[in-house]
Amino acid sequence: WPPPLWLMRQAGRYLPEYRTIRAEAGDFIALCTNPALATEVTLQPIRRFGMDAAILFSDILILPWALGWGLRFAEGEGPVMPQLKTAGDLETLDRMRMADKVEPVMETVRRVKAALDPNTALIGFAGAPFTVACYMVEGRGSKDFATARGMAFSQPELFNRLIEELTTSTIAYLALQIEAGADAVMLFDSWAGMLSAAQFRHHSIAPTRTIVSALRARFPNVPIIGFPRMAGLLAAEYAAATGVQGVGLDGGADPLLAAGLIPQNIAIQGNLDPLALVAGGKAMAQELAPILEAFQGRPYIFNLGHGIVPQTPPDHVAELVRLVRNG
Amino acid sequence: WPPPLWLMRQAGRYLPEYRTIRAEAGDFIALCTNPALATEVTLQPIRRFGMDAAILFSDILILPWALGWGLRFAEGEGPVMPQLKTAGDLETLDRMRMADKVEPVMETVRRVKAALDPNTALIGFAGAPFTVACYMVEGRGSKDFATARGMAFSQPELFNRLIEELTTSTIAYLALQIEAGADAVMLFDSWAGMLSAAQFRHHSIAPTRTIVSALRARFPNVPIIGFPRMAGLLAAEYAAATGVQGVGLDGGADPLLAAGLIPQNIAIQGNLDPLALVAGGKAMAQELAPILEAFQGRPYIFNLGHGIVPQTPPDHVAELVRLVRNG
Repeated sequence: WPPPLWLMRQAGRYLPEYRTIRAEAGDFIALCTNPALATEVTLQPIRRFGMDAAILFSDILILPWALGWGLRFAEGEGPVMPQLKTAGDLETLDRMRMADKVEPVMETVRRVKAALDPNTALIGFAGAPFTVACYMVEGRGSKDFATARGMAFSQPELFNRLIEELTTSTIAYLALQIEAGADAVMLFDSWAGMLSAAQFRHHSIAPTRTIVSALRARFPNVPIIGFPRMAGLLAAEYAAATGVQGVGLDGGADPLLAAGLIPQNIAIQGNLDPLALVAGGKAMAQELAPILEAFQGRPYIFNLGHGIVPQTPPDHVAELVRLVRNG
Repeated sequence: WPPPLWLMRQAGRYLPEYRTIRAEAGDFIALCTNPALATEVTLQPIRRFGMDAAILFSDILILPWALGWGLRFAEGEGPVMPQLKTAGDLETLDRMRMADKVEPVMETVRRVKAALDPNTALIGFAGAPFTVACYMVEGRGSKDFATARGMAFSQPELFNRLIEELTTSTIAYLALQIEAGADAVMLFDSWAGMLSAAQFRHHSIAPTRTIVSALRARFPNVPIIGFPRMAGLLAAEYAAATGVQGVGLDGGADPLLAAGLIPQNIAIQGNLDPLALVAGGKAMAQELAPILEAFQGRPYIFNLGHGIVPQTPPDHVAELVRLVRNG
């Protein structure tokens, strides 16, 4: 104590130096696949704030893009992809070419790793299969991903095959990141919380367990953090059943209840509301105190409960780092 | 056993007879404030499926509309309102005129009550203060209501005053519904699950407790069901601390865990995924079984975990009613 600290989306639009590089890069995929620029933006928050970990600057949809699934980021709309509807669509995914297409991302991992102080960890990541499947079936962001969740009920064979394909690809993709130098990896299951308990076990816990055990066998010393956002009552079961070393908590989870329910040998990561960071000052300090108190005395990584939002004043991030470190 | 059954949005667009009336009514607010038509659509699902309860056909934003806060329903966009930004905006809310403006809604309650078989309950409802505040501050629907949640941190006095105003108005509005004939009332806190634990206690649990105790004092025999959607770990505390007689569970809550955590004297209402109802058949039966099993032997009201979606085949609703009643 103080706990290690990093912040989801710590490299991003709230930083003026990021916006400069972003404008230079052209589109978002070009930035993610440009090792020089992606390395620079990954390192920017570390230089400014000295977090304990850098997270690779990339996107969860780079994996399907590398499998040959069309992706573009439309201004003001977010990601747009074809909608996966049939077994034929699934067969167009090309796992063989994936490693080539993500090579610039691996070059970024190598460069960031070489540039970082040895005391600063490098975190790689991927979207969890269910969350990536949500975008591939829906074709874009959505408030409820009803098309994807509906397919899980109405075309279970197709949806299961998609999840299996993404599980296998995710293992390969994260293994490449670890071989390139990632010290830990994180699996973002951003939309799993919308699933019923039965579907959550089937489409979030089970594939995550498969990914964790495959990576554990090859890289026994690389910790894996799972983030089943909005899993609510099921976060504890996820933590215990998947084999992850750490579990991310969203901002809505009660710190004290979560601390009581999640096994003591599993690190908790989270969970300050990013909007408290936007407000700063007294509101932020008041939200922060019960979080730090609840997680004292157990494995814990300080983070937000969701990514930093663009309107966050960078000064508030500096203040947050000070507060967490000086208690 | 079998448990009483009704379905959120059981009167709605999935029914052809609803779409006929909706087209006749003109806009959505016109439908909500036309006692003849609103009575007809409230009764339509009861005639077709014989649910154990009818829910007043209305909208959670009818209350702010009745307080003088402009509201329209834009085609394909959902509700659009002015954005509440200042204490001056708050002062324009006119609680004195509210009762007059909601008189057509109360007339609907009286007509529905008179038309229903005495064995069928009539449920009135309102949005919980936090959820209504979300729309008033944001001015429309949103995937995260960041403007509203941000105001709670950055302008706590203004936001607290808004919640207080809505708490007082909601008590008055639900009291009118009960006096007009509602047998039970439900408070929809659809967005409370996005709040941090501290903010959830302050903006969801505390105002709900105030509403429940005010109504309990006046109407000791009228049950109140609270629905803190996506409250996750905090659903049990909500159930115990607010004084509600029933708590709604969203589709993501694990039935068995929830049954263990929510006090045995409080009824649980929920929580089949509406997309399982769209799929029907085996997928629906498989999702349904663990829900019915988990809640056997305790006070329980069968429902979905979220409202019926428009693409739901009415035949699947009939099948669901059969399955719940015949085990």
